[in-house]
Parts: sequence; structure tokens; C-alpha cells
Amino acid sequence: MPLLLDQVVSKLASLEEAILMKLLDRCQFAFNEEAYTPGMSGFDPPETASLLELRLLEQETMDAHFGRYLVPEERPFYSGLPAPKRRVPVQDPELRIRELETINLSGRILVSYLDLLPQVCRPGSDGHFGSSVEHDVICLQAIARRVHFAACYVAESKYQSDPEGFQELIDRQDAEELRRKLTREEAEREVLQRVERKLRSLQRASDPSNRYIIDVKPVLVYFRDWIIPLTKEGEVRYLLQRPRS
Amino acid sequence: MPLLLDQVVSKLASLEEAILMKLLDRCQFAFNEEAYTPGMSGFDPPETASLLELRLLEQETMDAHFGRYLVPEERPFYSGLPAPKRRVPVQDPELRIRELETINLSGRILVSYLDLLPQVCRPGSDGHFGSSVEHDVICLQAIARRVHFAACYVAESKYQSDPEGFQELIDRQDAEELRRKLTREEAEREVLQRVERKLRSLQRASDPSNRYIIDVKPVLVYFRDWIIPLTKEGEVRYLLQRPRS
Repeated sequence: MPLLLDQVVSKLASLEEAILMKLLDRCQFAFNEEAYTPGMSGFDPPETASLLELRLLEQETMDAHFGRYLVPEERPFYSGLPAPKRRVPVQDPELRIRELETINLSGRILVSYLDLLPQVCRPGSDGHFGSSVEHDVICLQAIARRVHFAACYVAESKYQSDPEGFQELIDRQDAEELRRKLTREEAEREVLQRVERKLRSLQRASDPSNRYIIDVKPVLVYFRDWIIPLTKEGEVRYLLQRPRS
Repeated sequence: MPLLLDQVVSKLASLEEAILMKLLDRCQFAFNEEAYTPGMSGFDPPETASLLELRLLEQETMDAHFGRYLVPEERPFYSGLPAPKRRVPVQDPELRIRELETINLSGRILVSYLDLLPQVCRPGSDGHFGSSVEHDVICLQAIARRVHFAACYVAESKYQSDPEGFQELIDRQDAEELRRKLTREEAEREVLQRVERKLRSLQRASDPSNRYIIDVKPVLVYFRDWIIPLTKEGEVRYLLQRPRS
């Protein structure tokens, strides 16, 4: 059964909505810079890492036990995680991936998220450092899922729509031309319109007297300058490594 | 500074909204009964517990390291968790609690949640067992936070509004009369109206072609028959143990 781009796009819309809901939840806490500052985790004995780094590593260690990273779109932020303790379903037969980590863009997702955060949170500290990083981890995982899911499934569905055209570029390992062939400006505009509509509508449903309302602009810039380009980078990586049918 | 019931209620509204958003996220997966069935976790070597139980225990072990359960409104589902590795802010000076676990109602919250779940999820299985229990844990923690936060802060603010009246009942350890004095039917109706309005408005913002829309009725029944009575039970427990000013 061919992979249909329409179905993939509908799933992407749902993953984007999940990012927005989780980001709104995170922004109910102040920025809390202490949580991102190395050595200020409050751990005793002291740790050199930041509270977010410690939390993300412990979360990913747990998730690795549960087999999360056997799924293509779940790419971890840390390497060297433990082996799974669970047998989970094998890789989606729709995809062709030799080594899942080839498409891992989590490092840049983390950098981009830490850049976004002070633009959308209330400045200052409210003491809720633990809650902040707990929500950060949930946001980061939602963003990574959206980027890596799109990287795999959008690329594969586009490949299937023109196998010969793509295969030629893959054989030549022509990243530049692949990037051009993958780009659909119309679709990128649609992502941004969808995100803006959704974020406004979610916040319209909120009561500003008990929910912090975030600025829409930096979120749109984040999708335009990070999520969309990282997704395209992931698509290129997916295709460059794609074993021949 | 006296604890104002209005501020507490506004915080409750925000915690309820968080429950609804997280529940909607959970319901994007099918019910997935396997995840709640003992021995079907897929762990190798096999575990007798269900996947949810394993996940909840590992999550709470991690959270205990980060000091989550030093906060009054964060009450765990498991006992015997490890000691915190982090120094975190001391107990809120507004509250008077001898032993935090006295107000722990998490066991009944878990039972009630497992009763709600098949009423709001799409029936059957979609194979996403890991994602389902990951979201369950997030939901359970949000529900427990709402119940225990309300139990502590609503009870304390009501006490402060009539210290003599409450102290007399506490001295007599009269749970029945405390329950009567704490009950405000008007406030309970308001919770249900707020939840219904919020849930409808959140789902109105969703696109049914890519988000599963849940039935509002069982959620309202859940708040009416579980969240509100458990909260009141927690308020009674808080007051019965409250050390004299």
C-alpha cells in the first residue's frame, strides 16, 4: 500500500497541535533560568549539569528501558542510552532505514528550544524549577517526534510519488538537488497558517485570569526558522541513506 | 498573609484545564487494554505487573530523585520510593501538615482513572501501548495534583475564614460535621460548569479529521463522582490532622 502524503500531513497537523498544547502548559511557569544553568540543579552532592540536562537524561534512560527509541520517529537527545527491556513492534515496513540515528536532529532541536523559551515565557523565576524542566522534556519530545516523523514519512511518501527522479539524486548523493526537489513553499506556508490558527484558537479557549497567554509571533518564527528547515534536513538525510527498493 | 479562596479557585481552574488537555492527548490513542493487563507488558524477562504499573513506578522513582514528593500537592501512587537527590524549597508556610502522606488519595485516583479510560477512548487496540501509558502517567499526575492541591489549600483557606468553628470540630475529630461544613454545592456546580465549558471549547478548536473528539458526559460524571468527592475527602483528612495554630 503506498504511503499517502495526505495521511502523513494529517498526522503532522495532530503532532503540531500536541506541540502547541504542551508549550502552552510549559509557559504557565516563568522562564526560570536557574533550571538551565550548569551546576544550579540543587542536587546534593552537586552535579555539573543543569537541572534540565539531568532530567532529560533520566527521562531518556527510563524511556530507553521501555523501548521508545526502537521507533524511527523517536530519536533521543542523549547517546549511550541503555538497551530496551521490552520487546516492541519492529520498524514500520513503510520506511527504509539502515541506521535510525542517521536522521537524529535532536541536538539542534534542543538548541532551538532553549532559544525559543525565553521569548514565550514570563521572564524571571517563580521557583518551580522541577515543574519547568518536567514540561520542557515533554515539549522537547513532542517537537522531536514531529520533526523526525515528518523527516521519515514525508520523505518516503515523496520518494514513492517519483521513485526514479529521487533515486537518481540518491545515487549521485546530491543533497543540494534533493533539498530543492523536496521543497514545496506552498506546503510550508500552510504549516505556518495552520500553527497560527491553532495557537490563536487554543488560547481563545483559555481564561487569561488563570492561564498565561503567550505571544504568537515567536512561535511562528520558531516553526519557520527551525521546525521546517530541520524537517527538510531530516528528509534529505533519510533519502541519502535510503537503501534501494 | 491570609490564604484567599479566590486565588485558590483560580489555580484550581488552571489545574483542571491541564487535566482536560492531557486527557485529550491520551485519547488520541485507542483504549489499548493490553497496557493495563498484568503480564502483558512485553518485558523480557517477563514482569507480572502491567505496562502502566511498570511505567508509573519507574516514573515515580525518577520523580522521587528530583524531589517531587517534598511538595504537599504531589502525592505518589507508590510507596517506598527512593529519597530525593535534590534539595528543594521547604514546605509552603501557608500549610500545616504533620505528615504529607496522610492526605494521599492516589490509590483511589488510579482506580477511578482506569474506570474512566474505556469510556472516553476509542475502543480496541492500535499497538501504541508505550505511548498510551506514557500519557496515562501524565494524566494521573495532573489529576493527583488537582485533588491534593485542592485538598490542602481549599481546606486551609476555609479554616482561616472561620478558625474557631473549624478548630472545635477538629478537636472533636468530627469528620462528618467537617464534611458538612466544607460542602458548598454552589461551588461544586461551578466546577462542573467550568469543566464542561472548557472541554467543549478545547474540542471546538480541534480538527476532527486529525484529532479524536471525546464524549463530554463521562468526563463530567468523573468530576462529579470522583474528583469532587475525593477532594472533599482530602480536605477532611487535612483538617483532621492539622496541628493547632
